Amino acid sequence: MQCKAEVTVMFRKSILDPQGAAVERALKAHEGGADISSVRVGKVIELTVDGPDAKSVEEKVKVLADRILANPVMEEYSVHVEPLS
Amino acid sequence: MQCKAEVTVMFRKSILDPQGAAVERALKAHEGGADISSVRVGKVIELTVDGPDAKSVEEKVKVLADRILANPVMEEYSVHVEPLS
Repeated sequence: MQCKAEVTVMFRKSILDPQGAAVERALKAHEGGADISSVRVGKVIELTVDGPDAKSVEEKVKVLADRILANPVMEEYSVHVEPLS
Repeated sequence: MQCKAEVTVMFRKSILDPQGAAVERALKAHEGGADISSVRVGKVIELTVDGPDAKSVEEKVKVLADRILANPVMEEYSVHVEPLS
């Protein structure tokens, strides 16, 4: 069964995010950007995974996210899996 | 009304994604990574926006995504807005 997995990796809230701060400044300088705050920039990794079912694919992707895609010391990640029809 | 917006920016399918290819190679080299394909890496920008309602916030964030956060020539983006309780 083929599934599409999406792993979102963001810096932990306690870690300074200079890229987010820079983007926030750029947005605020734009017309209509005054109402914007708390900008944070992260990564998203989309992958196609073959596995027996969505649950086992999610388990596998979580292991890979923890070991390879994210640095759990500084980053937090979320995994979303959905079957491809 | 405060809303949390999430803008996901990915390279268009027709554009080569070398970062995705590098991540795919790293994942395939890992135990259990043989079933993985079509890896693409993008950016996710989380922001808090103040506005009259979720719909107008979504309109505003779409304009900002189109003009500042993404390069529509090479990238495609999606916007997801949800009200903060």
